[in-house]
Amino acid sequence: MGRWEPDGEGRLRMAAMELFAEVGYEQATVAAIAERAGLTSRTFFRYFTDKREVLFSGSEVLQESMVAALRGAPTDATAMEAMAFALQAPADFFDEDRRDFARVRASVIAATGELHERELIKLSRLSAAMAEALRARGFGEPDASLVAEAGIAVFRVAFAQWVGLAERRTYGDIVGALLVRLKTLAAVH
Amino acid sequence: MGRWEPDGEGRLRMAAMELFAEVGYEQATVAAIAERAGLTSRTFFRYFTDKREVLFSGSEVLQESMVAALRGAPTDATAMEAMAFALQAPADFFDEDRRDFARVRASVIAATGELHERELIKLSRLSAAMAEALRARGFGEPDASLVAEAGIAVFRVAFAQWVGLAERRTYGDIVGALLVRLKTLAAVH
Repeated sequence: MGRWEPDGEGRLRMAAMELFAEVGYEQATVAAIAERAGLTSRTFFRYFTDKREVLFSGSEVLQESMVAALRGAPTDATAMEAMAFALQAPADFFDEDRRDFARVRASVIAATGELHERELIKLSRLSAAMAEALRARGFGEPDASLVAEAGIAVFRVAFAQWVGLAERRTYGDIVGALLVRLKTLAAVH
Repeated sequence: MGRWEPDGEGRLRMAAMELFAEVGYEQATVAAIAERAGLTSRTFFRYFTDKREVLFSGSEVLQESMVAALRGAPTDATAMEAMAFALQAPADFFDEDRRDFARVRASVIAATGELHERELIKLSRLSAAMAEALRARGFGEPDASLVAEAGIAVFRVAFAQWVGLAERRTYGDIVGALLVRLKTLAAVH
């Protein structure tokens, strides 16, 4: 990336989100995204395969950081404690600067069937990766899969709360509160 | 349905599953499914919109029965108890006669990306329907969404166990065991 293109990726990402919000995901072309960012389509394709990747390129980084946190949890951690480490891993990534981007992203995904499917596949893979990492720590089945799926349940609800318009709490605080809440709710049945 | 076509739907369903297992979902044509069932394509389309629907036509019935069970749970039921009623609702539907069909169905879905996506969408809708029914019972957020998602977590793991090759327990027994296990696992974090 040359000096004449400071943070091209970030500018393209923001331009894409603005355009998706204004004209809809389907109508937004790569050329229009690039133009809004003051760049060329050619430059766009240096950073992203297609416009869908603008929304999902962070997913793999996210999954890797969560798997690493689960692996690095204290040796004596229970399955749910190890999962809690994984869920807290993106707390720095999901900071205030990213919340507005995440809000627009969430509304674009909710409005577009194809993207919603992609998001569900991403979460399904994340769950499988968590279960695998739990088994690698010595937890058997069904515990590994059950904790992984319950963790994804917390992640989904936490993320939905975090991007809520009136929400002020940090992602990390929300995850912490939901893990306590899940314990309480699961206990009374 | 005339007397000369006893249980046409059931025969088509079984023929489709056999063919999917033998030649793969992509290669199986409606004509070949119908022929194997001793029926015509025209008859196939009286029961199903396309071959995908052979695998998913039970989903809506399932969702309706689960929502009805959640609505009909005792007035003083906790959110998780009401969810447990919903999870136990398909216990009669998922009987021994259906287990072999469900096993083949699960392997066909796992092997075909398009079907896997469809399954994820179905589960996402089921979760939304459960959360809605919990809110209708007076539970607020995040409890309704959290219990719905945790319930779907149990459902996914229960179903995966139930179709496991060496599994002998009933679907209902598996769900019961997993709900107890979730309580234990969630408690230690």
